Amino acid sequence: MKSLLLNADMGESFGPWVMGLDHEVMPHVDLANVACGFHASDPDVIRMTVRLARKHGVTVGAHPAYPDMVGFGRRSLACSPEEIENLVLYQVGALAGLCRAEGVSIGYIKPHGALYNDMMRDPEILAAVMRALVAYDADLPLMVMATRDPSEARKLADEQGVTLWFEAFADRAYDGEGRLISRRELGAVHHDTEVIVDQARRIARGEPLVASDGSELVLAADTLCVHGDNAESIAAIKAIRAALSEAGEAG
Amino acid sequence: MKSLLLNADMGESFGPWVMGLDHEVMPHVDLANVACGFHASDPDVIRMTVRLARKHGVTVGAHPAYPDMVGFGRRSLACSPEEIENLVLYQVGALAGLCRAEGVSIGYIKPHGALYNDMMRDPEILAAVMRALVAYDADLPLMVMATRDPSEARKLADEQGVTLWFEAFADRAYDGEGRLISRRELGAVHHDTEVIVDQARRIARGEPLVASDGSELVLAADTLCVHGDNAESIAAIKAIRAALSEAGEAG
Amino acid sequence: MKSLLLNADMGESFGPWVMGLDHEVMPHVDLANVACGFHASDPDVIRMTVRLARKHGVTVGAHPAYPDMVGFGRRSLACSPEEIENLVLYQVGALAGLCRAEGVSIGYIKPHGALYNDMMRDPEILAAVMRALVAYDADLPLMVMATRDPSEARKLADEQGVTLWFEAFADRAYDGEGRLISRRELGAVHHDTEVIVDQARRIARGEPLVASDGSELVLAADTLCVHGDNAESIAAIKAIRAALSEAGEAG
Amino acid sequence: MKSLLLNADMGESFGPWVMGLDHEVMPHVDLANVACGFHASDPDVIRMTVRLARKHGVTVGAHPAYPDMVGFGRRSLACSPEEIENLVLYQVGALAGLCRAEGVSIGYIKPHGALYNDMMRDPEILAAVMRALVAYDADLPLMVMATRDPSEARKLADEQGVTLWFEAFADRAYDGEGRLISRRELGAVHHDTEVIVDQARRIARGEPLVASDGSELVLAADTLCVHGDNAESIAAIKAIRAALSEAGEAG
Repeated sequence: MKSLLLNADMGESFGPWVMGLDHEVMPHVDLANVACGFHASDPDVIRMTVRLARKHGVTVGAHPAYPDMVGFGRRSLACSPEEIENLVLYQVGALAGLCRAEGVSIGYIKPHGALYNDMMRDPEILAAVMRALVAYDADLPLMVMATRDPSEARKLADEQGVTLWFEAFADRAYDGEGRLISRRELGAVHHDTEVIVDQARRIARGEPLVASDGSELVLAADTLCVHGDNAESIAAIKAIRAALSEAGEAG
Repeated sequence: MKSLLLNADMGESFGPWVMGLDHEVMPHVDLANVACGFHASDPDVIRMTVRLARKHGVTVGAHPAYPDMVGFGRRSLACSPEEIENLVLYQVGALAGLCRAEGVSIGYIKPHGALYNDMMRDPEILAAVMRALVAYDADLPLMVMATRDPSEARKLADEQGVTLWFEAFADRAYDGEGRLISRRELGAVHHDTEVIVDQARRIARGEPLVASDGSELVLAADTLCVHGDNAESIAAIKAIRAALSEAGEAG
Repeated sequence: MKSLLLNADMGESFGPWVMGLDHEVMPHVDLANVACGFHASDPDVIRMTVRLARKHGVTVGAHPAYPDMVGFGRRSLACSPEEIENLVLYQVGALAGLCRAEGVSIGYIKPHGALYNDMMRDPEILAAVMRALVAYDADLPLMVMATRDPSEARKLADEQGVTLWFEAFADRAYDGEGRLISRRELGAVHHDTEVIVDQARRIARGEPLVASDGSELVLAADTLCVHGDNAESIAAIKAIRAALSEAGEAG
Repeated sequence: MKSLLLNADMGESFGPWVMGLDHEVMPHVDLANVACGFHASDPDVIRMTVRLARKHGVTVGAHPAYPDMVGFGRRSLACSPEEIENLVLYQVGALAGLCRAEGVSIGYIKPHGALYNDMMRDPEILAAVMRALVAYDADLPLMVMATRDPSEARKLADEQGVTLWFEAFADRAYDGEGRLISRRELGAVHHDTEVIVDQARRIARGEPLVASDGSELVLAADTLCVHGDNAESIAAIKAIRAALSEAGEAG
């Protein structure tokens, strides 16, 4: 049985504004997706986040985004593939600069928000992100969404020699293609810890979920995305961690 | 007789706005101080500038600044030493990210504008810049201003194990301490190419300039800062290059 | 015969970066679309531009945009209608603040770049822009593109009590619906001054143009958009002005 | 006995980041200093804040700042007087744009953070702020700090025809000149509600405080600055309000 790494978005504070309970989440995850200053974070926040990750032995991942602080990188911005390639390189490098000061290396890249969604939707954008990754360090895995049929992403990755890490969500409902149901829909987000833990366990074991169209959905996932916004979600992280650890399924 | 490298600020365009004649300057200099996105430049401009530098065999230096696009990094911003350390690391790293895509390494660091002036005035700021440099790569030289008495900067550099590159100006008048006369003063900037070339030659040979208080001023310089804003200044760069090359004094 | 006002984008410099030949264009146009700081301009540039407009008796229009300096407001950003309403209000107000210092009032609103295109394409966005305009000052005209069939825009405008000013282009080719041919296509932009002047004259007289699909296209226009980027385009502005003035067709 | 208005900083959230308990503070204050998008806030936050103020009958004041989101406007930026004049006009106008959509007028101007401190320290900056205010609307009061000897500010205000509103602080210790003790010093901030209420009452009655040098300090104040960051400070606001109301001293 394969072990699932837990990843969480981190370093999303900005200047005087605090977001997320990074100190409480960090001890329980394997991978920290660290904001790079385009949708959140700033040089000081990055430094503190990398230091915190190092202290807990958590792998630092670059979490690049469209340049849109006020929209938190959640709004699509019609960038050209070249612009995307270069803004990913800029952000990964910036994070790496602060990592060097903490003796840490970047372990993977996971685009954020609208850039993540756009890359899953548009192969040209995915290819641009991959070009940035390969140009920066071809050995870094790229985190993408586990869907019912990941063959397109795999094909692009094989062509460019990129390792993919597929991520799944324990607290989100999926449609028949294995895409997340929009947060605007009823039932899109699970709030019951038992439901969340059960979904995590099923993903870890390769057992099917039930998609919104009633079909069975098996997601081949390397990592599970968790959130640490409030006490409830911290509790969910711990419950997932405990459930997977018992079964030897956590990272 | 020691050879003087020519350095120039580059990559100062931003989005749709063009600044500087980078294509005409690059063939004639040794060192390109590349803006890192806080006072000028953006990921696309950085990429093109690094590519241009590589094509001409010019060494890329990081040119970090205070975060102030509209003020072009020329206005002091009351940052703490920690903030300065981290914003330098962020910018150097960001530039390095794009350099990797072009197979280029950063060769040195030269703070820009108000950050440069503040670092020459305030040892706490200079120390913060040095900490960033050492944390990033202790082998990178730091470019600082050649003054009459550089002992304070040398002392700090020795303590932190930092190599200094001293830069002088061929087209600017100096005061008795070896600081630049403010541009607001009459006679602060030389416009006559002969005067500029003569000053360059004197600096290359270790011969004294005449400071504004009438005293003789010897500047021990490793590099000469040149500007490529217009046709006149491009001509001056070529004249300096020619004069120093004849005498075997250019880099 | 109806008179056509000439409008031009102005105040597109930013900090140290200069764009456009505002001093040369201003004497020859009726309407200045002044950037408001989200895609170009800054408080100092706005102030100077408004002063220049006042000096030449040119009406100042607000030229609000998506928040995207590096992309010059040319990239669509997936904003909600509420976000668009508020960012238009913010920018119009900001411009008005500087206008008050020059004793000038805003005369109309013309969205810029991608926001302009998106508003012409999406009635929800157009309605959001209109809500902002009505909330700010219902007497201000909104400049929109003259197309073959402007009935949808007219209907929305009537519902909200908004006056529309339709603009046409003398230097651009149109498709059969009366939309601009993308700049990426061959023949999208006219460079021959005679062709440009002829198109201006036809629009002024309500005579048909020939669209790219060969159909006749009559555009009912209140204003003609002109550009002042270089000497050639300044010459074209003067030629248009002269041609329309002779015929009593200019504003 | 004169009545003291309570003012508080509001609308300091930004995009996804929440700051301040505006909904809990608004019912208890008279004046809302609304951030204008340069140190905090965005068009949507401004709109909501203005709407909240209107609902509670609270006067909206413009709270312009240096352009420095990451530093929250707390770091001095070496702007010229002209730049300050224009950035104040821009921000006041932007806020006014959103106010118009809510049927509200701006009631006063209070510079924020480092700009406030710099204006109290440097008459050239104070004069620039006043020029902006007069250019925008000479009837708007300018909020400045009550000090032992406000004659310099009064003189400048008289020359430019500006009404001053002096503000004092109930929760801060003062030095002998009537300036705030730096937050870095021990005892700079009062935390005991009784001490805070007592200081508020003394200021309202024109009774002396004891300055840090032991001298008696009478502050002639029109308004008291209160803070609503947490439950404790909300309680202090209510206690001040109650104490002043009993005595008929609140606004």
